[in-house]
Amino acid sequence: MLDVCLLGTGGMMPLPGRHLTALLLRHQGHSILVDCGEGTQVAIRKYAWSMHSIDCICFTHVHGDHVAGISGLLSSMGTEGRTEPVHIIGPAQIEPVISHLCIVVAVPFDVIFHTVDEGTFDFFGVTITPFPVNHNITCYGYRFDIDRLPVFLPDRAKALGIPVQEWSKLQKGESVRVGLKKFTPDQVRGPSRRGISLVYSTDTRPCRSLEDAAYDVDLLVTEGIYGDPDKAQSAKEKKHMTAQEAALLAKNAGARESWLTHYSPSFRNQRDYVRDIAAINPTVRFARDGDRKTILFDDQEEE
Amino acid sequence: MLDVCLLGTGGMMPLPGRHLTALLLRHQGHSILVDCGEGTQVAIRKYAWSMHSIDCICFTHVHGDHVAGISGLLSSMGTEGRTEPVHIIGPAQIEPVISHLCIVVAVPFDVIFHTVDEGTFDFFGVTITPFPVNHNITCYGYRFDIDRLPVFLPDRAKALGIPVQEWSKLQKGESVRVGLKKFTPDQVRGPSRRGISLVYSTDTRPCRSLEDAAYDVDLLVTEGIYGDPDKAQSAKEKKHMTAQEAALLAKNAGARESWLTHYSPSFRNQRDYVRDIAAINPTVRFARDGDRKTILFDDQEEE
Repeated sequence: MLDVCLLGTGGMMPLPGRHLTALLLRHQGHSILVDCGEGTQVAIRKYAWSMHSIDCICFTHVHGDHVAGISGLLSSMGTEGRTEPVHIIGPAQIEPVISHLCIVVAVPFDVIFHTVDEGTFDFFGVTITPFPVNHNITCYGYRFDIDRLPVFLPDRAKALGIPVQEWSKLQKGESVRVGLKKFTPDQVRGPSRRGISLVYSTDTRPCRSLEDAAYDVDLLVTEGIYGDPDKAQSAKEKKHMTAQEAALLAKNAGARESWLTHYSPSFRNQRDYVRDIAAINPTVRFARDGDRKTILFDDQEEE
Repeated sequence: MLDVCLLGTGGMMPLPGRHLTALLLRHQGHSILVDCGEGTQVAIRKYAWSMHSIDCICFTHVHGDHVAGISGLLSSMGTEGRTEPVHIIGPAQIEPVISHLCIVVAVPFDVIFHTVDEGTFDFFGVTITPFPVNHNITCYGYRFDIDRLPVFLPDRAKALGIPVQEWSKLQKGESVRVGLKKFTPDQVRGPSRRGISLVYSTDTRPCRSLEDAAYDVDLLVTEGIYGDPDKAQSAKEKKHMTAQEAALLAKNAGARESWLTHYSPSFRNQRDYVRDIAAINPTVRFARDGDRKTILFDDQEEE
């Protein structure tokens, strides 16, 4: 189960009623924030759950509208009593940039930096996979995966004579030895099961890496900077993606559901383009600040 | 005439519905901003007039809640087409701090730094006078003055035989020569007249410099971080000023009107202390986000 809250839908600058684009994820009481522009801490208080549980912050790139709120957020987390370290993942520039921004605050806990080059990351059961996208500076998207264990088959375990105290190891995927016999998980587990997956990527042209990453995800959160087809050329020049381009990309990727965000400050009339988008891909919609969703495993019921 | 808009009343961190403390002043189409925390650009759009007219930004000190919004503001001013320089006044640390913060944005106009040590500044008819206050880092308050010319007395000018084309110089305070005769302003002007004055100072213990600066001002904007008398010791330790202390200081200074601001995030129940404050000084009140006022010269009528 993954709780998702889109903290804002703005690009470039925060506006009254439209926070800058950032996403908060929660799994088993731990939160991951993606991007932190000016005012993201306010959006967290307004729309989401506690900032206290944020253990990891991923940054797509170091443009101000995605990073300038970090000093305030870390400072406020400190004021609220946090002492545990916070992990930050981003492109190589992220550490010097955040160090510069934080000269105006006191942060009373450790901040541990990781660069996207390190590969994948596992935070409390969520696998985080950065992938490069195509913007006018180095920029990454992120895929988040929660694996699901295959069904455990107790009747088979019984039939094989495996003692009950060994079952949980097999269930988790470990082999066990009982006397002289070795048992492997595939003997007592059903077929592999689909997990939960989400991709977040803003500030990019449509690109193969994003399309590949978004393959069959439960939710793709990506940018639709403009709706007006007359602005397609501008989007291209500024290395952004229009709503129509995003809808097509999501279709090609086979994303199960997609939210558009990171709107230009001038893009206010989303409703004028709802049909346009639906005609390309009915699983795509214009997101709004504070949109929330709980993603469950297939066939899982909400607790 | 001076238009005043209090952009926020928060201290330490921005909250939903409570922007960080900052003040916007406008005189003859030019604006001066005092402090710029995270989200100040949003408050300007929400409550005040265009950010395009901001020619000067004064900073009290370099704590994040007073300065972290500057990169976003300057970037947005650039996006809106500004090309004219912006002047920034602050303590000596202001230039390196703002330079650090602005590494995440592009600012397409010149930023000209001035330190408070330079004395007084004149911006389009507003005299800006910084004065040191007593916080846990170097911190300044600002007094803003708009002078008012004495009444011009045309009957006297006529009686002295001064040609009409020389009147405006005399009215503005310059002496003129007509043939062999020299005329001075005091010959054709009435007594000096009270101008418009405003003091802004947050993040300080009560101190003599603030009390002196606030003498007889039209409006004192200052901090009342707590209302609860039990928190007086905490305010003292953190070098802040309680609402009661501010009310007393305003009374001693003879400020005509005072607005309290820069509330602790925990200070929500201002109404519980309204009587308390009024008993000390009835000209003081708890300000709210977006409070506006137009200060006129005595006996002047709004245009």
